Amino acid sequence: MNQLNRELALHTDKYQINMMYAHWVNGSHKRRAVFEAYFRKLPFGNGFAVFAGLERIVNYIDGLRFTEEDVRYLSEQEENYDPAFLEELLQFHFQGSIHSMKEGALVFPEEPLIRVEGSIMEAQLVETAILNFMNYQTLIATKAARIKQVAGNDILMEFGTRRAQEADAAIWGTRAAYLAGFDATSNLLAGRMFGIPAKGTHAHSWVQSFGSEQEAFDIYAKVMPEGVTLLVDTFDTLRSGVPQAIATAKKLEAIGKRMNAIRLDSGDLAYLSIQARKMLDEAGLPYVKIVASNDLDENTISNLKLQGARIDSWGVGTQLITASDQPALGGVYKLVEIEAENGKMIPTIKISSNPEKVTTPGQKDVFRIIGPKGKALADYISYPGEPSPRDGQPVKLFNPLHPYLQKTVEAYTALPMLEPVYQNGLRVYQLPSLEEIRSYHREQLDLFWPEYLRKLNPEVYRVNLSETVWNRKQELIKDHLQADRD
Amino acid sequence: MNQLNRELALHTDKYQINMMYAHWVNGSHKRRAVFEAYFRKLPFGNGFAVFAGLERIVNYIDGLRFTEEDVRYLSEQEENYDPAFLEELLQFHFQGSIHSMKEGALVFPEEPLIRVEGSIMEAQLVETAILNFMNYQTLIATKAARIKQVAGNDILMEFGTRRAQEADAAIWGTRAAYLAGFDATSNLLAGRMFGIPAKGTHAHSWVQSFGSEQEAFDIYAKVMPEGVTLLVDTFDTLRSGVPQAIATAKKLEAIGKRMNAIRLDSGDLAYLSIQARKMLDEAGLPYVKIVASNDLDENTISNLKLQGARIDSWGVGTQLITASDQPALGGVYKLVEIEAENGKMIPTIKISSNPEKVTTPGQKDVFRIIGPKGKALADYISYPGEPSPRDGQPVKLFNPLHPYLQKTVEAYTALPMLEPVYQNGLRVYQLPSLEEIRSYHREQLDLFWPEYLRKLNPEVYRVNLSETVWNRKQELIKDHLQADRD
Repeated sequence: MNQLNRELALHTDKYQINMMYAHWVNGSHKRRAVFEAYFRKLPFGNGFAVFAGLERIVNYIDGLRFTEEDVRYLSEQEENYDPAFLEELLQFHFQGSIHSMKEGALVFPEEPLIRVEGSIMEAQLVETAILNFMNYQTLIATKAARIKQVAGNDILMEFGTRRAQEADAAIWGTRAAYLAGFDATSNLLAGRMFGIPAKGTHAHSWVQSFGSEQEAFDIYAKVMPEGVTLLVDTFDTLRSGVPQAIATAKKLEAIGKRMNAIRLDSGDLAYLSIQARKMLDEAGLPYVKIVASNDLDENTISNLKLQGARIDSWGVGTQLITASDQPALGGVYKLVEIEAENGKMIPTIKISSNPEKVTTPGQKDVFRIIGPKGKALADYISYPGEPSPRDGQPVKLFNPLHPYLQKTVEAYTALPMLEPVYQNGLRVYQLPSLEEIRSYHREQLDLFWPEYLRKLNPEVYRVNLSETVWNRKQELIKDHLQADRD
Repeated sequence: MNQLNRELALHTDKYQINMMYAHWVNGSHKRRAVFEAYFRKLPFGNGFAVFAGLERIVNYIDGLRFTEEDVRYLSEQEENYDPAFLEELLQFHFQGSIHSMKEGALVFPEEPLIRVEGSIMEAQLVETAILNFMNYQTLIATKAARIKQVAGNDILMEFGTRRAQEADAAIWGTRAAYLAGFDATSNLLAGRMFGIPAKGTHAHSWVQSFGSEQEAFDIYAKVMPEGVTLLVDTFDTLRSGVPQAIATAKKLEAIGKRMNAIRLDSGDLAYLSIQARKMLDEAGLPYVKIVASNDLDENTISNLKLQGARIDSWGVGTQLITASDQPALGGVYKLVEIEAENGKMIPTIKISSNPEKVTTPGQKDVFRIIGPKGKALADYISYPGEPSPRDGQPVKLFNPLHPYLQKTVEAYTALPMLEPVYQNGLRVYQLPSLEEIRSYHREQLDLFWPEYLRKLNPEVYRVNLSETVWNRKQELIKDHLQADRD
């Protein structure tokens, strides 16, 4: 599909090309490097994030080539890149290895979500796009999971295209919402690209374009007698919209059809839905459902439910598609290992005056430790080759800041969370279908006790470093402070 | 370019297709209709918005075709669209007329920014994408104008790709920022597509990938001796980064080159920049500039300046590219006129229990009324054919809610703000270059007294309806209330 095959090699920060070039001139461009992508802080005060964006990243990596036009553009830059370097870019394709969380996974701060191993040159190039795709889809999937949690089994529809931050956000954002539990989208392109059920009825303009609301409703129902939903707030919801929708529903009954729903899009949705429900029930139309929309999010939906609103189906737009209470996930991509001149891989660190910005050195694995009751106890980050976690070996969960929280777990299952996606440029991962991702996400939710999942003040889930990882980090910090003093 | 020619016919809400279909079955699909796009409230508490998105909209309209694949997808929908309707979609191209504000224009609430006239069918189809593009680019251009206002003549660079809401947002967002006064972008694709100067140096990973910070700096400067900028906060800004950057600058001087700048990306930017400036000056490097980045926006920049920060150039990321304090502009697209069965165009209205959501009926023009001092007095909205505003005719600026604010202006120039872009499907507007748009934007700023432009508590600029427009609106409201009582 055209949308999936855009040429995105230049969808990167210029400093990536500059570093690639500087390494190339310096002869260090083939050094092996390991980068890890992660975020430091959960969005929205939520207790977890929902990883998403991998399919988009795979499409990007698979299609990653520089075009002649790209290279011509680069040749005109003030950096005066060597033509031999640009020639090499034309031959470029990704030859590294990538491990990643699976889409739909529940993920937590400070754990690697994507690990890229390759030459420093290729691993640098892909940073910007990987973060761009991972940050946005993970953000929206997380927001959608919060909304799904309060909506329960009600139908959730993504309605945000007109307020999304451009076309890609509308399309990939609705995919992220769907994988985290939304049921449908209004965006037909997303429907076509991903097989998400597409839904839609009519706008106020439909009603305005006829002599009367009744005429507009009747004509619409006549054209689409199956599953029609009528928007009832163009003039006056309870005095004109609902009674006329009822009249239309009765005409449909006369020809053996059933109206699906009415939609409320303004005003006091609690009051209006309760009154509309009464009117529909009294008219013998208990099967006609009520859809609501208008700047909804997890908080308004939860409040409307507390007020007894009689709403069956929610159209959620702006607040979801822009994640408006926190419109960016601050995911970063940090070098954790680099090949030294002697060919040995050495762990690297970045020190910062903000302690939470100090990186954790070395290529790491992530395990989810599942206890005897089938629920997740903690995520555990260790180096490849460490003895635990292995089934049967005790795993020590320790919190260096709060040593009294330490505990040793003996009976557990350790689920490795990072899947191999590319090995030396070869894709080794079969992308699951979107329905499979939705199921996996639901299974993931089942692994967690409710206190980690609640939307307000969730319990903090433990993400622990192995002692070896922790000690390595402390050593490197000490080394750098020492070097500073020297 | 590939990015500009994506197939976007299905980038629309499903209800648009459903309304098109219902009109088609009903035989009303060729009725002429007029829609206007506008927003109701300025974002960020700003006194104006900067219109943007037209080039993207023109690319969309020019390329608007349904593919065989689109139509196949539609044929599988639950609505069971008539095959003859789908066949007609394959022949579809836009044959209507569009007027629009020019990109870079200062625009205000409740005035039409884009006016679409055409068959109800085609005018419905384009709603979603037009709003998606206009809302996002106008939002980002407005945010960028606020940042430009506090940055004055400092260099502003857009650095937000990794935190943008997917690829389109990164690319079109940086274009919007550039037209409102930014100077450069880090995104190479945006650089290639729009000719925006692309800038970039190196990341922390460059420093981490060498044995020492000094080695990393020296190698980078050796490869790119012209205009090098060094990132100095990988380990310790003042104890290691700045002194080593100074050492590198001295080595460059020895070969007759000048280092461009150092970049600060964490910590207390006020303190660090003042100290770094001192160190650079004392080292005889007054020409080395200081670039700062790290979650900047108009408020942090303005505060840093008040604190005496010595920063020459600002890299602005997340806060700009997501407009994080208000990530959506609530632009809407409303039917204002429809052809009646007798062929006459009749004004339409949408009533709402929220008074600000009542629409203003009829196809309207927008004039900017310029007083004798060359400054804008008000925007004036009237019907085509009204006697004023015409140079020489007095124009009555009245505020129906506050009659004492009424005044009559005799000496003025009336600038028509809506440009014809399409006439009956034919494009009649030559897209200006991005540089021309930047100039136009600066000219627009010059038309306004500073009190309308300030970022905090700006004076409210008048947008007045002509008396005829106002009276028409009141009549239609009365008619609908009357109809309700009948």
